[in-house]
Amino acid sequence: MEDSDLDFTVERLGECHIPSPMPFGRFVSDSDRILYHGRVDDLQSFCAGGGTPLSFEAAGPRERIFFDPQHLVCGIVTCGGICPGLNDVIRAIVLSLFHHYGVRTVFGFRYGFEGITSRHNHFPMLLTPETVEGIHQKGGTILGSSRGPQDVGEMVDTLQSMEVGILFAIGGDGTLKGVHEIAREIGRRGLRTCVIGIPKTIDNDIRFVEESFGFQTAISEARRVISAAHCEASGARNGIGLVKLMGRQSGFIAAYATLANSDVNYCLVPEVPFTCEGFLEILRKRLAERGHAVIVVGEGAGQDLMDKVSSSDASGNVRLGDIGLFLRDRICDYFSSNGIKVNLKYIDPSYTIRSTPANARDSAFCLLLGHYAVHAGMAGRTDMVVGTWKNEFTHLPICYAVSGRKQLDPDGRLWSGVLGSTGQPREMT
Amino acid sequence: MEDSDLDFTVERLGECHIPSPMPFGRFVSDSDRILYHGRVDDLQSFCAGGGTPLSFEAAGPRERIFFDPQHLVCGIVTCGGICPGLNDVIRAIVLSLFHHYGVRTVFGFRYGFEGITSRHNHFPMLLTPETVEGIHQKGGTILGSSRGPQDVGEMVDTLQSMEVGILFAIGGDGTLKGVHEIAREIGRRGLRTCVIGIPKTIDNDIRFVEESFGFQTAISEARRVISAAHCEASGARNGIGLVKLMGRQSGFIAAYATLANSDVNYCLVPEVPFTCEGFLEILRKRLAERGHAVIVVGEGAGQDLMDKVSSSDASGNVRLGDIGLFLRDRICDYFSSNGIKVNLKYIDPSYTIRSTPANARDSAFCLLLGHYAVHAGMAGRTDMVVGTWKNEFTHLPICYAVSGRKQLDPDGRLWSGVLGSTGQPREMT
Amino acid sequence: MEDSDLDFTVERLGECHIPSPMPFGRFVSDSDRILYHGRVDDLQSFCAGGGTPLSFEAAGPRERIFFDPQHLVCGIVTCGGICPGLNDVIRAIVLSLFHHYGVRTVFGFRYGFEGITSRHNHFPMLLTPETVEGIHQKGGTILGSSRGPQDVGEMVDTLQSMEVGILFAIGGDGTLKGVHEIAREIGRRGLRTCVIGIPKTIDNDIRFVEESFGFQTAISEARRVISAAHCEASGARNGIGLVKLMGRQSGFIAAYATLANSDVNYCLVPEVPFTCEGFLEILRKRLAERGHAVIVVGEGAGQDLMDKVSSSDASGNVRLGDIGLFLRDRICDYFSSNGIKVNLKYIDPSYTIRSTPANARDSAFCLLLGHYAVHAGMAGRTDMVVGTWKNEFTHLPICYAVSGRKQLDPDGRLWSGVLGSTGQPREMT
Amino acid sequence: MEDSDLDFTVERLGECHIPSPMPFGRFVSDSDRILYHGRVDDLQSFCAGGGTPLSFEAAGPRERIFFDPQHLVCGIVTCGGICPGLNDVIRAIVLSLFHHYGVRTVFGFRYGFEGITSRHNHFPMLLTPETVEGIHQKGGTILGSSRGPQDVGEMVDTLQSMEVGILFAIGGDGTLKGVHEIAREIGRRGLRTCVIGIPKTIDNDIRFVEESFGFQTAISEARRVISAAHCEASGARNGIGLVKLMGRQSGFIAAYATLANSDVNYCLVPEVPFTCEGFLEILRKRLAERGHAVIVVGEGAGQDLMDKVSSSDASGNVRLGDIGLFLRDRICDYFSSNGIKVNLKYIDPSYTIRSTPANARDSAFCLLLGHYAVHAGMAGRTDMVVGTWKNEFTHLPICYAVSGRKQLDPDGRLWSGVLGSTGQPREMT
Repeated sequence: MEDSDLDFTVERLGECHIPSPMPFGRFVSDSDRILYHGRVDDLQSFCAGGGTPLSFEAAGPRERIFFDPQHLVCGIVTCGGICPGLNDVIRAIVLSLFHHYGVRTVFGFRYGFEGITSRHNHFPMLLTPETVEGIHQKGGTILGSSRGPQDVGEMVDTLQSMEVGILFAIGGDGTLKGVHEIAREIGRRGLRTCVIGIPKTIDNDIRFVEESFGFQTAISEARRVISAAHCEASGARNGIGLVKLMGRQSGFIAAYATLANSDVNYCLVPEVPFTCEGFLEILRKRLAERGHAVIVVGEGAGQDLMDKVSSSDASGNVRLGDIGLFLRDRICDYFSSNGIKVNLKYIDPSYTIRSTPANARDSAFCLLLGHYAVHAGMAGRTDMVVGTWKNEFTHLPICYAVSGRKQLDPDGRLWSGVLGSTGQPREMT
Repeated sequence: MEDSDLDFTVERLGECHIPSPMPFGRFVSDSDRILYHGRVDDLQSFCAGGGTPLSFEAAGPRERIFFDPQHLVCGIVTCGGICPGLNDVIRAIVLSLFHHYGVRTVFGFRYGFEGITSRHNHFPMLLTPETVEGIHQKGGTILGSSRGPQDVGEMVDTLQSMEVGILFAIGGDGTLKGVHEIAREIGRRGLRTCVIGIPKTIDNDIRFVEESFGFQTAISEARRVISAAHCEASGARNGIGLVKLMGRQSGFIAAYATLANSDVNYCLVPEVPFTCEGFLEILRKRLAERGHAVIVVGEGAGQDLMDKVSSSDASGNVRLGDIGLFLRDRICDYFSSNGIKVNLKYIDPSYTIRSTPANARDSAFCLLLGHYAVHAGMAGRTDMVVGTWKNEFTHLPICYAVSGRKQLDPDGRLWSGVLGSTGQPREMT
Repeated sequence: MEDSDLDFTVERLGECHIPSPMPFGRFVSDSDRILYHGRVDDLQSFCAGGGTPLSFEAAGPRERIFFDPQHLVCGIVTCGGICPGLNDVIRAIVLSLFHHYGVRTVFGFRYGFEGITSRHNHFPMLLTPETVEGIHQKGGTILGSSRGPQDVGEMVDTLQSMEVGILFAIGGDGTLKGVHEIAREIGRRGLRTCVIGIPKTIDNDIRFVEESFGFQTAISEARRVISAAHCEASGARNGIGLVKLMGRQSGFIAAYATLANSDVNYCLVPEVPFTCEGFLEILRKRLAERGHAVIVVGEGAGQDLMDKVSSSDASGNVRLGDIGLFLRDRICDYFSSNGIKVNLKYIDPSYTIRSTPANARDSAFCLLLGHYAVHAGMAGRTDMVVGTWKNEFTHLPICYAVSGRKQLDPDGRLWSGVLGSTGQPREMT
Repeated sequence: MEDSDLDFTVERLGECHIPSPMPFGRFVSDSDRILYHGRVDDLQSFCAGGGTPLSFEAAGPRERIFFDPQHLVCGIVTCGGICPGLNDVIRAIVLSLFHHYGVRTVFGFRYGFEGITSRHNHFPMLLTPETVEGIHQKGGTILGSSRGPQDVGEMVDTLQSMEVGILFAIGGDGTLKGVHEIAREIGRRGLRTCVIGIPKTIDNDIRFVEESFGFQTAISEARRVISAAHCEASGARNGIGLVKLMGRQSGFIAAYATLANSDVNYCLVPEVPFTCEGFLEILRKRLAERGHAVIVVGEGAGQDLMDKVSSSDASGNVRLGDIGLFLRDRICDYFSSNGIKVNLKYIDPSYTIRSTPANARDSAFCLLLGHYAVHAGMAGRTDMVVGTWKNEFTHLPICYAVSGRKQLDPDGRLWSGVLGSTGQPREMT
């Protein structure tokens, strides 16, 4: 997608006529827009022909809203794998609907899209300020979750029969695609229902969204695990600590965890290719010189090195080869065949990382994210996600959020920082 | 200061002729500039007359550098109160100088500006990759610190006699003013010495710098303390938990800690005035209805309510009245005189917060900050600080950094989030 | 009290005829007794005249119980200051009553003894496995607490009118004295009600009870704070970190926190006298040699150094002079009058320590403590506390628990360990 | 081994003639002995024939010592897997030797027994108070470790040629057997060298030693992981969290972690047999009723259920079948063949648990353990370990420490507590 093709206009259910009951705060006007470009060069070449700068609609409470809070029914659903902060977001949405707008009926659909499909027989929970009290101190999601799509027609039937005005869907790429289909079906039926996505990706790989919730907590936990790997590695002759971190297509967690923990000697990510031969040779030299090594590998790294597999999981994600186990075996084989005894400890901390309660920063972030999702829904926006850009909250059409994955730039600042921290060679081929 | 008066041009010692030995990474060109404005409206009104957008010089490694690393002597100094991440920054500077540029002589001046003034007899430490190993896991600063200015001439004498090419000074508003004076004196003497500031303010109140290191760690720790206050308050009849947090002129810590911890009922900050009468009346109603309350107060809040004092500390900071003790006493008096028995617990966690080791995010941030400071110095920049803006690292002339304090906007998004979280009235007067 | 005068016979409401419904576990027989003496010498001199060894009744489930669970009403009350683990104990009692015995009616009295006194109008909470779910993850007490005694007759009136069979009272020295009075009044009235105390003292100073809950958590938190003090002290010239820890009459927290944290240079406790002159002279020498010092002082230390005060708080505790503030001022005055500039940071972390949720060890301990309290009550024991001795759970008559305070032995192993860790002189007078 | 066959007499190198230079503390006399029996019944039946009570020699400083500190050379070695607190113990030994006795030469042998065997070319480190500063804040061991025995004669050659007077060996069952052989060879050669073992077993399974260091830290970390498993399990339909914890022959970690974390529904340990059929049937019922389950399994549990394997690792430990993976597969197969979709998450946190730095309690414990080891060595004790019994530190002949494994009693208090917490049936066969 070229920059010049971008158009971040958000869809709306209709005109907003109802005065907002929001008891405080500056209202955001529709002309309040966040610049897409952050560098002068980029902006100038975009506007070269005299065009107007590309921008996102700013999130925030509107002076006039679309729904009458008195008669509004809302629903919340969480889909896919768990992620730090899910309960924070649920709670923030419920509290904002109740306290900021006076909405009184909020349902929590159980176990992802299954809960919106009547055949699965999951009764929705009624959510009130009382039921969400203290839930943000726990990991996971009180609503439960599941992977995979459900029949769009059936889901819209449920929304229609329950008279849901706003559906808040918290989920990743696959979920958002499903939400987009729901929005289209709602459009076809001409319903007064809007759907607001809250992007959930511990990998931080949603496009046009600068940072997603749970990411910072993931890095904190990853740091703990890397320290453990370093202890193991440095306490044994030719000790190797190998940690597999999340990151199916993007190495953000691996990269930031490396910056946060100076013990990492090699950081391998999906965006930067390497060869086994190249890497093993470099590793051998380090062991000879320093006697131990710590390796962090993003789960999507080095997929080209493994035999192809073509299955996919219930969420529609291609099932990746397990680069952690693959590397573990290749390293052991290599040194063994070179007559060098190594002591490798392999750690895969995914489940403990993603089930951690949100840290302070993510808690604050999730609170605002939930508030902004409510403001967007009350103002009749639909088929969009609440995103962030340059430290501002934005409205982003879902089609852009799912148009590809955000990846780290091997020529950019972040990866340079990683190289500067580990001292690993730029090329490992 | 009007926007139209701003000019973020950074001073340079001279032309850069030496090829950078940086072993990796994309070099940053001088035309790489970060937009100051983030909203379309602001940008357009700034450029209305056809002007070029206002921007900061992007931080990063330059292809040609000013100093010959072989013969370069550097110095590092930490000034003022301690802050999470100080050791991370020291370590990052040392490692970048050694590993990225091949510099071999780095001194750590002891106990702030005193250590650059010979009369105090503090011998500098020699800093090497070995001496900084693991220091980032400890709070505080291995160099020691002190408050207050020293004679500028004497300090430049020291730099001159030790042949220091780059002085890295980590400190707050007062320190940066001192660094600016040092830069001016260096200029007067025509020395080939540059000074690079790294803004240190746990309050996050340096102007034109979006976020300063240690701030996120401070919020994490503040959350713990607020939870304690909530336990105390909710476990007693008419229990009141009162927590004083840092924030001399800006309420950022109090505000973010409130967002991160839903137990807060009232957040008081320097930027939003209140009256004792107004606040106490509101508090009385809450106790009658809910039986307990948690109050967070930034140290600079409500200064107008207390009798004036006019002393200042060694750093030149005006000595504030102690709003925590003041509120504690006023609350107790008020309820006592109204015949209501309250159970107030007052907590002032400043020392434990600021001595905490950096959390994962601050560690990663400090690492990059240290690297960028080194890149700036090697490229002969001077009289500047390394800042951040819209998630990018920037070069900022010191005179702008010290031109006023950044404060939170009572009409902005952050404060609205606080009101939305606490439910406290917009006006408490 | 001489050893030879001790008699740890526990009072019983009557014979146990009802078969226990406990679904598992080995029952404890009444002949199962825990030896009081742990050293051969002590045992032999006690038994010199041919007597039988002194011992405690072992805690645990009995094969036959006193109360019919179907018709039993129980009550729980928490008194005095909060302490890590309170909610763990409440939860364990409720779950054991429900799941181990099939009791169905458990009341939680609110705000300490006030809640058992009708005039205060605190309605009791009904406690079920649902209401106590997850409460152990929070600090404080869900029941609330208050200090001070209430009218014993009125409290027994309440127990009588609510037909409470077992009252579980969680509290310290003052509370236990009150419980003892309640037991006596129950005896006078000939009621079938028993009272079981669970000793709560973060100071770990209950006599004949080896360890009380919350103590280990307190030490963990104290260690964090001492690290902060050390950061502050070591980062300033002549830096002094002064930390006041809990311990009204006993220095256990100060001593164990010192062992757990090698940064402490001086540990001052109530049991070991010192003089200001002696201590200040020693401190002066250290500053001259090492440049900084960390001091931990138990709140009851050095009371003889301050002017007498004779008031007492609502719990009947003598109001202590504040040794922390006293030392702070004396140290500053001393060095100031000697022309030495010191940089003292004083930290009093009491509220944050005592409101911390229980750590893993305390959680496990509180769970068992709650279970054993229930077993004791079901077996008709009364006027006793559940204690621990030589790592076994015991039944201890309340009169012994309140017969004096447990203190550390200045000639014993613990204090020797402290001296061995700090290197401080045995005498500081 | 019958109680009546026990004899805990500790071997000594010879008479102690040298006055101790210990600057403080009460000396321990040789008649100070800790009772072995803790229950009256057991004691009385042991002494029935008029015998003297069975007891351990009390640990502690002696008034007269065997070695002249001025001319003493000491060595420290750490063997086997890492465990929280190793660095604490190393540091405590070094500091006690230096500061309590004035010893000046302490070597740290590298990588376990390999480092005492010249053929491996690991040079020993010189250990001083400076080199051990702050090491206790890190997990692992600064000396490095390795598994497996080395030639005893060669090791004694090294001790002899380096004139080592006291060797402190920190290790588990296999290590202690090796240390015993070293002591015997020393005896055969008539050397003035003593060997002191410090029992290291995260499983807490050394016989006649009540608690070993690192165990409490392990439980704290295990609790975190179990919470993660609970999040995963409760957030999915038919969610199952399966956590494998350490415990080759003893279920202490699994049991205490279960007590510390009320989320566990089934705790499986080596000491309590179960069948797959029995367990799976019980699990099926729970899922049908409650929708999720959390299972904790000690690594040595259910070994009889798997096909025999007969290899052993370098430490001589029999290689266990992997009960975690076995159960995971059996559970999935069982439900799959019953047409029930389950969502199982398996977590094996061994490496992150054992590399954690010691928590406050373990730090305090390790400090004392190190001091007592030094006191024992200085007093010429040999072929012994420093143990604990009834909360006292003891001297225990190595042959008793390695005479079998301590296991939990399925009829005892601890297991009853586990059953009482989980509600799992006593029999799962």
